[in-house]
Amino acid sequence: MSQPSLLTTDRTRLRRKTERGSYDRETVAAILDAGLICHVGFSLDGRPWVFPTAYARVGEVVYLHGAVGNFALRTLAGGAEVCVTVTVIDGLVLARSAFHHSMNYRSVMLFGVAEAVTDETEKREALLAIVDHMAPGRSADSRTPTPEELRSTLVVRLPITEGSAKVRTGPPIDDKEDMGLPHWAGVLPLSLVPGAPIPDHSGSSGPPGATPPATMPTPSYLTDWAALRDANAP
Amino acid sequence: MSQPSLLTTDRTRLRRKTERGSYDRETVAAILDAGLICHVGFSLDGRPWVFPTAYARVGEVVYLHGAVGNFALRTLAGGAEVCVTVTVIDGLVLARSAFHHSMNYRSVMLFGVAEAVTDETEKREALLAIVDHMAPGRSADSRTPTPEELRSTLVVRLPITEGSAKVRTGPPIDDKEDMGLPHWAGVLPLSLVPGAPIPDHSGSSGPPGATPPATMPTPSYLTDWAALRDANAP
Repeated sequence: MSQPSLLTTDRTRLRRKTERGSYDRETVAAILDAGLICHVGFSLDGRPWVFPTAYARVGEVVYLHGAVGNFALRTLAGGAEVCVTVTVIDGLVLARSAFHHSMNYRSVMLFGVAEAVTDETEKREALLAIVDHMAPGRSADSRTPTPEELRSTLVVRLPITEGSAKVRTGPPIDDKEDMGLPHWAGVLPLSLVPGAPIPDHSGSSGPPGATPPATMPTPSYLTDWAALRDANAP
Repeated sequence: MSQPSLLTTDRTRLRRKTERGSYDRETVAAILDAGLICHVGFSLDGRPWVFPTAYARVGEVVYLHGAVGNFALRTLAGGAEVCVTVTVIDGLVLARSAFHHSMNYRSVMLFGVAEAVTDETEKREALLAIVDHMAPGRSADSRTPTPEELRSTLVVRLPITEGSAKVRTGPPIDDKEDMGLPHWAGVLPLSLVPGAPIPDHSGSSGPPGATPPATMPTPSYLTDWAALRDANAP
């Protein structure tokens, strides 16, 4: 059964700017879907590590993956406490004072313990979800994993249980006495925008009879990439 | 004296895909300058935290800041081991097989112990550097921090000593037997692109005689934002 909101604990209780925070599952899910990579933190012998990686949210779970030999993934699969943070930058907030500069952003921090996915079906679906998280619809247009590829990949599952979202939107908030200063103030919106797709032509040196990829039209999930992902914008 | 490369330790020795790694100070500095935010990890009672925040590199140092009451910054200033990771996404790498999907990226992981900046001049310069890291040249077009604002801000300094960079570029690398498959393959370049600046008009309700910000031209450091920051691209 889905809970209406995430667990509030000592770790997730927002300490500052609490008006920017949320424990709402839909808010958290939307930010997880809008992000492209996450930053995964764990500690080993009391020393922290933070690494960037792809991920996917499926229902109430976040999946991460790596090679079976991957040190970080193995540490997570071994039961280490983990913090997974996803941040989407929406703009620069330029106040009249240097002090009140900020950014508009959406972020989620999740805490917990991940576990290795051993069920082959779940593992395959998690990997395809990670591909579809990069480009919605892509997994149906790729060669799916072989049993050997599944065996060589470690997938871990982190339940979305304990965590919080934090969101800043809107204009700068300057001190009243600064409002007349002759400095431009406002927001510079920022978003991750695709350039022209670069097809890989090396297929033409593939096996005889291969269709040269150069002749393939760009798939709609790439030409529509921003729109498909903007469906997750606030 | 600047060292030619960063310290290689058990933490920074790259374990996998070592051809993507670098300990070169110039490479590390260029990625730190190209990133917009960092993800900062520390552990408390063996449990990891990862939070996103603005930063700036100045020479051989990375500065982070927050309110004096900020829990995470206070933990860092208290001598906690920290990992600061900066990741720039350059594109999606779409292979013919789901298995070989990847991303093009530039990332840096730094390890060490940060310390609070107590010198007022260094603190002020660090804060202005963080503003200029957001938009090069902006600090000169803003009201600089007052002594009270400096007192209410905690700035920490992490020396760039132990760490590594990791970079992936180029096309997908598929298995030979997949090269003839009828799936589009290649790279979808991605970059953080500014939209039209949104001026804050609330200045017109400021003190009498105030120049309405609506009439101010957009500063060149915003119209040229992408180009100014692209100067840091590889």
